[in-house]
Amino acid sequence: MFGVTILGNNSALPAYNRHPTAQVINLCDQLFLVDCGEGTQMQMNLYKIKRSRINHIFISHLHGDHYFGLPGLITSYGLLGRVADLHLYAPPPLKEILDRQLAVAGTVLPYMLYFHPLKEGTMADEEKFSVECFKVFHRIDCYGFLFREKRKPRKINIEAASKYNVPFELFDQLKEGNDIMLNKELIKNEELTVANKPPKAYAFCADTIYTESLSEKVKDVDLLYHEATYLKDKTEKAVSRFHSTSEQAAMLAKLSNAKKLLIGHFSSTYESLDSFLTEAQAVFPDTQLALEGQSFIV
Amino acid sequence: MFGVTILGNNSALPAYNRHPTAQVINLCDQLFLVDCGEGTQMQMNLYKIKRSRINHIFISHLHGDHYFGLPGLITSYGLLGRVADLHLYAPPPLKEILDRQLAVAGTVLPYMLYFHPLKEGTMADEEKFSVECFKVFHRIDCYGFLFREKRKPRKINIEAASKYNVPFELFDQLKEGNDIMLNKELIKNEELTVANKPPKAYAFCADTIYTESLSEKVKDVDLLYHEATYLKDKTEKAVSRFHSTSEQAAMLAKLSNAKKLLIGHFSSTYESLDSFLTEAQAVFPDTQLALEGQSFIV
Repeated sequence: MFGVTILGNNSALPAYNRHPTAQVINLCDQLFLVDCGEGTQMQMNLYKIKRSRINHIFISHLHGDHYFGLPGLITSYGLLGRVADLHLYAPPPLKEILDRQLAVAGTVLPYMLYFHPLKEGTMADEEKFSVECFKVFHRIDCYGFLFREKRKPRKINIEAASKYNVPFELFDQLKEGNDIMLNKELIKNEELTVANKPPKAYAFCADTIYTESLSEKVKDVDLLYHEATYLKDKTEKAVSRFHSTSEQAAMLAKLSNAKKLLIGHFSSTYESLDSFLTEAQAVFPDTQLALEGQSFIV
Repeated sequence: MFGVTILGNNSALPAYNRHPTAQVINLCDQLFLVDCGEGTQMQMNLYKIKRSRINHIFISHLHGDHYFGLPGLITSYGLLGRVADLHLYAPPPLKEILDRQLAVAGTVLPYMLYFHPLKEGTMADEEKFSVECFKVFHRIDCYGFLFREKRKPRKINIEAASKYNVPFELFDQLKEGNDIMLNKELIKNEELTVANKPPKAYAFCADTIYTESLSEKVKDVDLLYHEATYLKDKTEKAVSRFHSTSEQAAMLAKLSNAKKLLIGHFSSTYESLDSFLTEAQAVFPDTQLALEGQSFIV
């Protein structure tokens, strides 16, 4: 299951029981935390997130509503006796801040915390997936993340393989999509395999002003998360603060040919979120609100 | 009304919907925040604390569960357009950490944040109250705070004053407890005034190992807050971690001749808090649990 669970969907000022940004991505049996606003560890308790399964944390930028929950989470991992390595991908100054916070507390973590400074390009390249990092456009250095499954091997058609008596040794070739020679006869791959599910991709666009150029970086993703801090009557305010409106998020989804759109980072000005959905769906019908505690399939 | 409202009563690891340490002291029409664990600003929303009325924040020590909510609160004050001065009393390294966090976020606060490094002695000395800071005994530098009303002027007995025809100009002398001369006659103060309520004192003992010497610093207070991280079967563990048990908190209250005791900072090991109360009340009957959202009169 490739999906995302929302832990926080509000912008900087917590309001109406909405929390600052945090999301958990479930990909290839691993959990990835993306941003960690204040209270994220409490939200994890509330929504029963198995925090021990998180080994990679990505922080988009150093506005507090995207990382003020991180020192607490890191400390709690220590108190819980974590021993597994933890990888943190974040803007460079965060390392120095965390190091200082741990030092003044006299805290020595019982696990290894590896810090990876964010930069554009591939941040993780595993057998079954990759995570890419791309620049978005905000008041300070800010990055989005693209979680992408790798092409999955074709599946053996067991019935057909039995009929041809294909030795197991050739299965790997078949899964890769190759034809095979059997008793001097060429057998086309399609006769022995079926296609697997196509690889999926999730893009998290962090905090950003609306810009068409972003669509190239998140082209054709299955699920696009784009911030929607304001409604369209506040477009000028959005621009001045390097944020986006709900309509702009939808325009970006359309431009990038995303299959589905998820919007969040709502301003604390708004108690009801209904209009965010209406305004986005007018442009891009397959839009959902990133509601806290809800999970979305990529 | 001199009182304290509890926003967080748990030790470092948030559990059972209990939060890390934070308390709001209401004294002489001002609010004082003491410690600011992660999520304090959300707790303020939940319990309708008028955060704009807080002008003084005290941080006992730099373990994260006592200050990780502070950067968020300070930033939120900025977003809310605060202009009033804010005074922060905390261990010196916190200034550098906050300055760095604000700098990397490109944040310029719209109000003045005055940093006062903690040291033993009087931290605030106002007309009607004072705040003293005293060392407690923890793994790192840690301070307790003593909020003390000043002696209140005596109240004029209006009926008696009318009878003697006392001019208003002499009221201040009377309030100070002085006798007055009227038509060459000495009139005793007691005939014209009544005593005001005696000044009260609240002591917050932060995180500390149990030590009798602390009782001298909080002698005769009306309400004593003392941490009670563990139950008495974990006394050794408490000692090894520079924390106290519920029974020890009660012993300290008894030794210091406190009128009432409030216990908090419960370990996340315990879901139920009943035994904390039982064990403390066996030694010091007038004990209450520092439950979140509840207010206690000093």
